[in-house]
Parts: sequence; structure tokens; C-alpha cells
Amino acid sequence: MTIRSHRRVSRRGFLQAAGGTLAATSVGSVTPAAQVPDIKLPEAPGKQVGFALVGLGNLAINQLMPAFAKCRHARLTALISGRPEKAKQLALVYGVDPKNIYSYDNYDRLADNPAVDAVYVVLPNSMHAEYTIRALKASKHVLCEKPMANTPQECEQMIAAAKAAKRKLMIGYRLRYEPFNQALIAYAKDTAEAGPTRVILADAGFNIGDPKQWRLRKEMAGGGSLMDIGIYALNAARYLSGEEPVSVNAMMHSTPNDARFAEVEENITFQLRFPSGILANCTSSYGVGVNRFRVAKARGSAELEPALSYTGLRMRVLRGNTIEERVLPQRDHFALEMDHLAECILNDREPLTPGEEGLKDLKVMMAIYEAARIGRTVSLT
Amino acid sequence: MTIRSHRRVSRRGFLQAAGGTLAATSVGSVTPAAQVPDIKLPEAPGKQVGFALVGLGNLAINQLMPAFAKCRHARLTALISGRPEKAKQLALVYGVDPKNIYSYDNYDRLADNPAVDAVYVVLPNSMHAEYTIRALKASKHVLCEKPMANTPQECEQMIAAAKAAKRKLMIGYRLRYEPFNQALIAYAKDTAEAGPTRVILADAGFNIGDPKQWRLRKEMAGGGSLMDIGIYALNAARYLSGEEPVSVNAMMHSTPNDARFAEVEENITFQLRFPSGILANCTSSYGVGVNRFRVAKARGSAELEPALSYTGLRMRVLRGNTIEERVLPQRDHFALEMDHLAECILNDREPLTPGEEGLKDLKVMMAIYEAARIGRTVSLT
Repeated sequence: MTIRSHRRVSRRGFLQAAGGTLAATSVGSVTPAAQVPDIKLPEAPGKQVGFALVGLGNLAINQLMPAFAKCRHARLTALISGRPEKAKQLALVYGVDPKNIYSYDNYDRLADNPAVDAVYVVLPNSMHAEYTIRALKASKHVLCEKPMANTPQECEQMIAAAKAAKRKLMIGYRLRYEPFNQALIAYAKDTAEAGPTRVILADAGFNIGDPKQWRLRKEMAGGGSLMDIGIYALNAARYLSGEEPVSVNAMMHSTPNDARFAEVEENITFQLRFPSGILANCTSSYGVGVNRFRVAKARGSAELEPALSYTGLRMRVLRGNTIEERVLPQRDHFALEMDHLAECILNDREPLTPGEEGLKDLKVMMAIYEAARIGRTVSLT
Repeated sequence: MTIRSHRRVSRRGFLQAAGGTLAATSVGSVTPAAQVPDIKLPEAPGKQVGFALVGLGNLAINQLMPAFAKCRHARLTALISGRPEKAKQLALVYGVDPKNIYSYDNYDRLADNPAVDAVYVVLPNSMHAEYTIRALKASKHVLCEKPMANTPQECEQMIAAAKAAKRKLMIGYRLRYEPFNQALIAYAKDTAEAGPTRVILADAGFNIGDPKQWRLRKEMAGGGSLMDIGIYALNAARYLSGEEPVSVNAMMHSTPNDARFAEVEENITFQLRFPSGILANCTSSYGVGVNRFRVAKARGSAELEPALSYTGLRMRVLRGNTIEERVLPQRDHFALEMDHLAECILNDREPLTPGEEGLKDLKVMMAIYEAARIGRTVSLT
């Protein structure tokens, strides 16, 4: 492992580490420094984990790269792209050493680069398994976007590769790391406030654009809305119940003659039964915007809406005739997620959402597709 | 038929009929009357239809009796009860002639009472068919609470009895008559604003109290939450889609050892597929409070929450990043519903929610129970 401390201790970082805010260094005498507003500075970075990003698409460029600035332990140190000019420009913007730009061809040479501890795989779903396994073979830890892969078999190969390489494998379930979903999990678990959870409603969908994108190609995406966005509803039903579903029902429909849905499904609604008797009703859609998780109990319920947007989540708690809005910090989901893996690497702990978590969702998603296809309840036990 | 005009034209009613508000009668001269605030008086009643209420339970006492004051064409003229003292007291409060109090034994003698044009059946579900048919045989029109009966067979007998008697038979689907649900139907139908409806979410449930009430006795209620409250979600999915479902899935669960659910189900979640491809995901519960209808389209969605409370409904329309609250008049659902039947009687028109509407829900509910029981998609075509 090649963990390093931040190379330069900047003046600000030094002052911060030495005594809190700049203003605090001149207590008792009125100096120009005393007029500097009492701004809380970010903590000086401690040990950091170097991340390579593979797949420089919309998510990487617009969410992940900016998120590194908010990380305490994760640092962007390398880029992998099929387009060298694009990678060079992004490296310039984000201070990545141009020596650390790779193509898909020389990807395996990451093995020789001590600046890279972990690889974040942000490629189309069908490439997750291959690029995860190659990174693990190069002795890198891996953070892989969801869905983990297109099939449970691939997931199992990825898990085996991580074990063989003795490296961490984490799946990018960003909502598990942000405050609103964590608060809803806490509400669901806490039986004192409103009783045990009885019903979960989880709806995730958006009206997908460009018909030519890889998400609408079955071979690359593995499926339609369920693989990409419905997985949020499924994952939420699992983490809110804290249980694994024992059976599923589903119905599927795609608007006929809509070019976007020539290969993959538009809408799939599904039902889950959990061992304790919790029932979940879920929506997955590439046709309509739905974005809500609700936990319903005997003496109240709580809801996130939006529940899965990158920003602006809101939480309401309903009890009797009162509706309470719980105001929680709006944090960068990706920064929290990347920091989590970084800390797991630094402290040799298992991530909260390891490969096994991704595999569980894949198995349920396959059952959902089967239930929709055969028109029967599919058992998962 | 025994339609009559309001017997006394009161002074206020006369002034109102003659020229609007009281204040308006003294325009141009400052008189004491000119200081009377410009209050809009209720219109003087026109022709009115006499209603008998059978089943003086919570709904009749707390909702229906007070609602008559807000009706234009429906008037409470008779009570049927097994408890004469209770009926006498209520007759006194609501100005019902004590001669028009009946018991279940002499119920059929309503036939001889010209003060009664219609009977509103508010009895336990298992008694709907008998008391509807007896009222029809007494040549009365009938408004029957939902669910129409415990079985589709009973519904068919009720419809046949209405045809034979040449009397109206309406089912008390109050939400069809109030402004919020009507606005949501209009939103669902209007393809110009946001496209055609793709997904409907309808959740109806509450945490039921007293374990000894008839609603929790299978023989009297016909079933559990689905028959009583889930029927709102089902009916909404049907009126919001404007279509009849072609297939259903369902899952059912009742908390073990909960005395309330010894005979009937607590929770039943169900899915409906409509011919146009609309998918509906619905919740029915006697365990948790859920109270929401949503219509989701490509370019926006609209929602009622609460959707089925007696008062305080709210409507939100979502489009892009905006959420618009549509403020609509809060009207008395039962007054609107009773007035609708009264107007249908006065003008010899078919009610919006005739017996056939109740039968349709019963058939789908039977399919929902079957789907939950056998673990398969049940076809309705």
C-alpha cells in the first residue's frame, strides 16, 4: 500500500493545524489579522488515498471530480480515458500529473504507479466486471459504480478477485453515506418513536433523454430503468427494512414505438416481501420522474422527497396531524462515499457497501425481471 | 316520486331570492340595513329529495347528518335504527319528524312514506345487499356506501333490483364529487400539460382502532383493509387512468398475534396493469397511515396528499424544478355526493357512480385477494 501524507504543508494548513482559525492566533492585540473574519478553514488533509477515475463521462466530470475537493482522505491522482485530449484538459483543471493519464490499453500498468491506491470504475455497466478485476489484479482497491455488473455471475467473479488480491471492493451506493438517508434508516430502525416498520414505498425514476446513450443499449446496460435508477428503490427497501426480500412480484411496460425503449424497459413496478412481514411497493422508471422513499409505521411515517437527487434532499416526519420537516446538512454524497473507501483502506476495515451488497441487489433484480416475465411471485429463499 | 318544494319560504330566503344580499336591498340610502356586512347567503332550496339514513353509526352521525345542511337538493327526512332512543335524539337535533323513525323490522313500510325518496345505506358491508334491495322493492332510490357488497354476486342482485324497480342505485364514492380528486382526474386526462399518464401511485391506509368493531369481522366486512380503505386506492387508480385493469399482482401481510387481524388482512399491496400500459402501484393498510394519490407523466406529475381525508385535501403539481400548490375549494364530500343523487333523481339522470361502478371494484378486489393467495398475476379480461 502506498499511503502518503499530503506532500506540502501549506502556510494556511500549518496555522490551522497549530491553533484553529487565523484570527485566533492574534487574540489580545488588534492587528490587521484580527480583522480577518472568523472563517472556519477546512482541516488540513491527513493521510490521503490516491484515486484513479476510469470512465470520464458525465458522472465523473460533473460530480466526482469536483467532489474530491470536499474529501478529507481521497485525492484524485490519475485518469483513464480513451480520449487523450479530454483527459489532458481535465488533468489540467484538477491538478492531476499528466504522467498519470492512462488509456484502456495501458490500464494494467496502473500496477506500477504508487500514486494510485484505488480505482473508481465509472464505465458502462457491462465493463464494470472487467475493469474492476483488472484493477484488483494490479493490486488496486476498487470503488465500482452501481449496478455492480450485469449479472450475479460477474459480481461473484469480482468478489473473488478482490479476495484473491486482498484489496477492498466497494460499490458506489452513495445514499448510504449521506445524512438524509441515514436519518431515514435511523427512523426505520427506532421502534420507540412510532413502532416497527410495516410498509415501505420507494419510487425512483426520471424521464431519460438521448435515445443513443449506452444506458438504453441492453448489451452495455444489462437492462433498463431497473438497472440504472430502480436499483435505488430496491436498495432503499433493503436498507430501510434492514432485511433481505424473500419474494418479489413485478409488472413491466414500455411505451410502444418509443425509440428509447427498443432494447430495454421503461417502467417496472415491483413488490417485495421481507421476512418480518414488511411489504415494499416500488417504482422504477425511465419515463416519469419519481423520487421518494417512505417508511410507514403504526404511529407515524417518515419520507424523503427528493430522496435520491445529488442535492436538495428533504425529510418529513408525519405523526398524527403534524408534519415536521427535519433539516439536515446537505453533504456531497460522492465525497462522503469516496472518503469512506479511503478510510476503510487507511484503517483496513470493510466498506459499508462491499461487493456482496452489489451482488444482493443483482440477484433481486434478476428475480424482479423474472417475476415480470412469467407473471408469478418469484421466491428468493 | 314525491319531490316537493321547500315548504316555507323564510324571510331571508325571500330576500335572497329577490335580490341577492340583504345589503343590496338598500343601495343608495344609509339605513341600518346598509351596515349589515355583505354576506352571501345560501341559496334558497329548490326542489328537494327526502333521504332516509339506515345505520346510525359514526359515519352517519358525524358526517352525513351534518352534511345535509350543505345540500341544495337533499334533505334528511327519516331515520332507521335498531335503537329507538338514539334515533329519537338524533331526530330532535336534525329536525326529523319522529313519525319517520323506523326500525329494521318495519323498514319495508318506508314504501308508504312519501317523505322518503331515497335511502342511504350506511350499514356494515354484509347488510348492504339486503337493505338496498328491500329499499328498492319499497320503490325508493338508493345511495349505498362502498364497498357495494361483500361479493360481486350480491352487487349483481342489487343492480338487477334497481332495474326491476326503475329506481336509481348509486354507490357512495364521495371522492368523485369533490374538487381535488376532480382536479387530479382533469390533470390525468389532459395530455397537453405533461403528456399521457404512465404511472399511478395510490396509497390508502390508517391504523385501525377498536379490535371489536364490525370492520374487523370477516363475515360482516367481507375482508380487511382492502374492502374498507384500500378500495379508495383501487377506485382512484381506475378513475385516474380512466381505464379498467387487465391484470393484478398482490402481496398480503398481517401482524401475527394482533387481535385486530385475527379474521381479516392488515396490509395488502397490489399492482394493476391498464390496457394503455399505465401501471399502478397501490397500498391498502389497516396498520399504517398512507393517504396519497399520484399521477406521473413524462413532463411532470401531480399529487393529492391527503387524498382521501374528509377535509384538508391538498394538491401539488410538480414540473421540472417547480412545485406548485393548487388551492381549490374545500367542499363537504358527502353533501356533494348526496346532492348528486338528488339531482339525478330530480332530472332522471344516471349517477356518475352507479351500481355498475361498485361491481367493477368488487370484481377487481376479488382478483387482488386471489393474486395474493396464489402468488400469480391474475387476469381480469
